[in-house]
Amino acid sequence: MSAMSSSRVLSRTQVGIVGAGPAGLMLSHLLARAGIDSVAVDLRTRREIEETHRAGILEQDSVDLLTRTGVCDRVHRDGHRHDGVELAFGGGTHRIDFRDLVGASTRLYPQTDVFIDLADARERDGGDVRFGVTDVSVDGLTSDTPVMRFTDADGAAHEVHADFLAGADGSRSLCRREVPRDRRTQYFRAYPFAWFGILAQAPPSAPELIYNHSPRGFALISRRTETLQRMYFQCDPAEDAAAWSDDRIWEELQSRVGANGHTLAEGPITSRTVLPFRSFVQEPMHHGRLVLAGDAAHTVPPTGAKGLNLALADVRVLAEELERAVASGDTAPLETYSERALGRVWKAQHFSYWMTTMLHTLPGATPFDVRRQEGELAAVTGSTAGSTYLAEAYTGWPEGR
Amino acid sequence: MSAMSSSRVLSRTQVGIVGAGPAGLMLSHLLARAGIDSVAVDLRTRREIEETHRAGILEQDSVDLLTRTGVCDRVHRDGHRHDGVELAFGGGTHRIDFRDLVGASTRLYPQTDVFIDLADARERDGGDVRFGVTDVSVDGLTSDTPVMRFTDADGAAHEVHADFLAGADGSRSLCRREVPRDRRTQYFRAYPFAWFGILAQAPPSAPELIYNHSPRGFALISRRTETLQRMYFQCDPAEDAAAWSDDRIWEELQSRVGANGHTLAEGPITSRTVLPFRSFVQEPMHHGRLVLAGDAAHTVPPTGAKGLNLALADVRVLAEELERAVASGDTAPLETYSERALGRVWKAQHFSYWMTTMLHTLPGATPFDVRRQEGELAAVTGSTAGSTYLAEAYTGWPEGR
Repeated sequence: MSAMSSSRVLSRTQVGIVGAGPAGLMLSHLLARAGIDSVAVDLRTRREIEETHRAGILEQDSVDLLTRTGVCDRVHRDGHRHDGVELAFGGGTHRIDFRDLVGASTRLYPQTDVFIDLADARERDGGDVRFGVTDVSVDGLTSDTPVMRFTDADGAAHEVHADFLAGADGSRSLCRREVPRDRRTQYFRAYPFAWFGILAQAPPSAPELIYNHSPRGFALISRRTETLQRMYFQCDPAEDAAAWSDDRIWEELQSRVGANGHTLAEGPITSRTVLPFRSFVQEPMHHGRLVLAGDAAHTVPPTGAKGLNLALADVRVLAEELERAVASGDTAPLETYSERALGRVWKAQHFSYWMTTMLHTLPGATPFDVRRQEGELAAVTGSTAGSTYLAEAYTGWPEGR
Repeated sequence: MSAMSSSRVLSRTQVGIVGAGPAGLMLSHLLARAGIDSVAVDLRTRREIEETHRAGILEQDSVDLLTRTGVCDRVHRDGHRHDGVELAFGGGTHRIDFRDLVGASTRLYPQTDVFIDLADARERDGGDVRFGVTDVSVDGLTSDTPVMRFTDADGAAHEVHADFLAGADGSRSLCRREVPRDRRTQYFRAYPFAWFGILAQAPPSAPELIYNHSPRGFALISRRTETLQRMYFQCDPAEDAAAWSDDRIWEELQSRVGANGHTLAEGPITSRTVLPFRSFVQEPMHHGRLVLAGDAAHTVPPTGAKGLNLALADVRVLAEELERAVASGDTAPLETYSERALGRVWKAQHFSYWMTTMLHTLPGATPFDVRRQEGELAAVTGSTAGSTYLAEAYTGWPEGR
């Protein structure tokens, strides 16, 4: 042990950040703007993260955060602005008009691109970000000088002493596990279905997203570029994606969207994957001098696209509260962060659950359940108030509302 | 057979109505105002119906229907106007202000009183209503002259030939069963809980209804008069109401409402009953020259108080369409009635289901589910749009919206 520790590179920073995905990088970026030093580390290489394709619907405030804080304005050039979504059910299609209802919109902009923009911005601004590290650990969380240890990509061992630590290390977070069992509550829910997601070389089938309810189950028509499209359909969580031929996939998708009068432009399927559905929250989102942010503290099912937005919303609040904590040396702002963030987290958990249960067919659903869902969809789309309630959740509740 | 039929009193009317509860009597009343004759019969005596105590929250349009059509204005004198409801959860209470949000209100006015007003009005206006009949049957539904047969309270057998028949004969409807299986679809859902309802001699505990969510399950604080109160709490459908002492009932209620800071005024419990929860719809709501209305065609769980209101909304539309059908001799308006009514029925089925699942604790619910419900309640009460969406459903969707 003494031999090992003597070989470590010792350093100091104000905030040590475990995880350099969008949440960790945005935190590092916002702290830097407030004049606060940080070191961010990630087990993955930059290339690995860039090659992890995940969809991205950015809320209005997420877009604003990227541009207002000077990360990049590429989201405005390359992101598709969506002023609404369509809900297809009962043989027809009904549009929820975001701009009319709440004066906001969303941007279709993949999470990968958010990561690239943030990584470039941190590099541009001289931020200390280390990808491809190993042996990450945190220690001394309830002391005044918590420690983040890691071995860098060149094999050098580091020990970073910090005022505060942030765990932005995703759904398999190691930081989360460092909170003692008697100081945390974990909430969990599994869903009896998954999404079968594909990327297909085809022209867009629709200008905006179509959330499609059908007696055969849910389907989502999305898009990526002019030549590459992303689509999903509800499936069994144990489904073997490799066992499906292109023809069988298109037949299933066409049959679901065809029930409401839509036809998809087909093309070669270049990627197929099964996404599990689960909801998770760990409370509180702080312990001693550690805070958790993004997927490390909570995961949502993909319906409604709240995952990345919730992570950015966490970090927006966390940067403010860490600024107070660094200035005062006190941990009280971390508790405030947890309380502020959790209000939004539970609203988003509910929204994701609501969109999921309104649109998916549960195993064992009776014809009553399907008709009741159609009754709900008719009630929501037929009411300005109901449509507004959905639109304000989808485009993102403004901070403080 | 020939001996029997020779002893029958033969008569003619324009509309034969099976069932003389609120739906059947209101239909008879509205038809009379349009100059259309009807005969309404009920297996129960008038006294039996008057002694069936059922709660009553009347939507704005239900109140208007009673007064506008000259039934009685007692609902304005004796009914408590409620300009909102309270939702209690997470340790606090949040009011949904109907007048502010949708400019409407509800009236607390028991179903029994609606029945008494309607029965008095029909008597006053010389309507043909026969209570306490036996051997009711309908026949010739797809012929031009359907028949309603019954034996009156004095033992005389009747055969009424009509242009149209209406089945307003409640949740155990005999008319509903006369629709051939291949011409109808029945939708059904059972719920894994019931309401334990009590009447207690005590002063009111609150000016308005309080829908109370708690980890121990749902409770509803309602009222009846200044000295008699009605309360409910979620229980197992197999619960034996007689096995509960007054003390045990109050303890359970106090513990549930106490979680959100409320205390109930206690008193002797004079009635206790277990109300099952079920949802049912039979489609379409017409067959040949027969139409169904109210509980005969659909039942809802009691959360949200849609049962009586839905029956009155059916009848409001049905009277219009029957007027057209009688004038033209054609059955097409009956199909129009079914389509118009079912739009509202499914919205109400969803609303009842929504209020039920948002507020009740499902067997096997995890802590996640309870927190998610609190997240939903916070989202609904924290959003003007969400509160408006609830308020417009609770006070009743205006016809044609």
